[in-house]
Amino acid sequence: MGVSSERRRVVRVRAGDGAAEPVRSARPDTLAVEEPLMVRLVRGGGPVRSPSSAGPVAEPLTLTMRTPGHDFDLVAGWLVGEGAVAAASDVVGMKACQEEENTLDVALAHGVVPPRPRAHLTTSACGVCGSDTVVEVAGALRWPVAGDTVTVAADVVAALPDLLRERQRAFDRTGGLHAAGLFTADGEPLYVREDVGRHNAVDKVVGAALRDGRLPAGGTVLQVSGRASFELVQKAVRAGIPVLSAISAPSTLAVDLADECGLTLLGFVRGGSMNVYTRADRLR
Amino acid sequence: MGVSSERRRVVRVRAGDGAAEPVRSARPDTLAVEEPLMVRLVRGGGPVRSPSSAGPVAEPLTLTMRTPGHDFDLVAGWLVGEGAVAAASDVVGMKACQEEENTLDVALAHGVVPPRPRAHLTTSACGVCGSDTVVEVAGALRWPVAGDTVTVAADVVAALPDLLRERQRAFDRTGGLHAAGLFTADGEPLYVREDVGRHNAVDKVVGAALRDGRLPAGGTVLQVSGRASFELVQKAVRAGIPVLSAISAPSTLAVDLADECGLTLLGFVRGGSMNVYTRADRLR
Repeated sequence: MGVSSERRRVVRVRAGDGAAEPVRSARPDTLAVEEPLMVRLVRGGGPVRSPSSAGPVAEPLTLTMRTPGHDFDLVAGWLVGEGAVAAASDVVGMKACQEEENTLDVALAHGVVPPRPRAHLTTSACGVCGSDTVVEVAGALRWPVAGDTVTVAADVVAALPDLLRERQRAFDRTGGLHAAGLFTADGEPLYVREDVGRHNAVDKVVGAALRDGRLPAGGTVLQVSGRASFELVQKAVRAGIPVLSAISAPSTLAVDLADECGLTLLGFVRGGSMNVYTRADRLR
Repeated sequence: MGVSSERRRVVRVRAGDGAAEPVRSARPDTLAVEEPLMVRLVRGGGPVRSPSSAGPVAEPLTLTMRTPGHDFDLVAGWLVGEGAVAAASDVVGMKACQEEENTLDVALAHGVVPPRPRAHLTTSACGVCGSDTVVEVAGALRWPVAGDTVTVAADVVAALPDLLRERQRAFDRTGGLHAAGLFTADGEPLYVREDVGRHNAVDKVVGAALRDGRLPAGGTVLQVSGRASFELVQKAVRAGIPVLSAISAPSTLAVDLADECGLTLLGFVRGGSMNVYTRADRLR
């Protein structure tokens, strides 16, 4: 597992009041580590071999900036979020490149279609619109979440942000990491992951669940430390998660997708209160 | 200009204390609009024509989720951040697709190389590392910011977050929009833009400056509402901005790139104090 924080020297400055000079002091500060990760696809199935050997050729799949640690979870969850993978057996192998750091090779099972580059996703001959995007994602779910009959008590949801925060190992040191946590309907934590990118934190949680054979994650609640965007709702429903709870605001398209998919979307979960944007029947 | 917020119905729930039942109330809530934007590249130069006419063919360049409004700024700034464009004349034309919403066609001047898909950016035959990425970006700057002799008073910087917040038209309604603002060294606002994506808000500011012929933006300060990642530092230095100020934490790679490029990077700018991570000589 990688290092998630590092110490650097910093100058702390307090601005002067009017005529007073600013006050400076040098001290060490702990920062969240951000490093690139190149994910490469190895064609031809079978075990992942080094590209420098006579094995199959690896081609670039995506390049992301992430906090090192739980890289296999990150890549597995990203593949779920892209709609490419639905079971641990869909991933034949993952291997960190031996020659160079921050490179991970993944091989998919026969018949599993790898994600397409983002720019080439479009729903019509000319242009895209939010409604089409929502219908396309909702119509292609492997595990519809609309029928999930789980209910969650409002006081359980109200406690999740603090439970998530308590389990963030690196946040207290850096102040700079997003977190995502998958919880049971009783508020028991299943997986908590951190990253400089909020999408990455969700990918790590989903990937951990996939690798444990826990997808679809019916009956669970995904708590995130920030806002709820279209992409986070997409990641939740593609993992079969019926409830997404965010500390901050959702966007219009996040609400539209949650509504279309039958996901319960909660926002502004703070100080014992919350907003319920969709499927309020799951909150008791 | 597009609509940046919309009203939706929401159920507000206050969790019960112990035996008390949760209290529910229905009310309208204002949300930040999120919509896809497909950016397409028109080959062959000349004015941008519709792909349904006999004009040049448009091919997908990127698909992003954004808050509608200032789309031309967004695309122009994104092209600067990708290192493809450096002057308003590098962009021959931009045109919203008439047939379908959320699609923008862009034509680049002869000799301007369009951005490559993200997955195909890599610095070595096998793998990537943070140091290589930093050196690659820093070594290819059109306008080195290290030599910018601007200095900024600490109390000017301390006031920027409030100045930015005052100019955020949609945040008060939605609580869900990031902002970026370009200011002079005296704290005069030049451009303020909002978006559900923090990278998009910066792209919109840089694009506005490009289209006004204000790049390189020497002597300015870029204030952002969130954290400082590698990508935001990259966008700042590629626009020739010498000072980046963030309300929250920077990552390690953001500090490394700022250090290598000679950018002044400020974080945790709150309550009259700030952390200076690099080039503290510009703060007086």
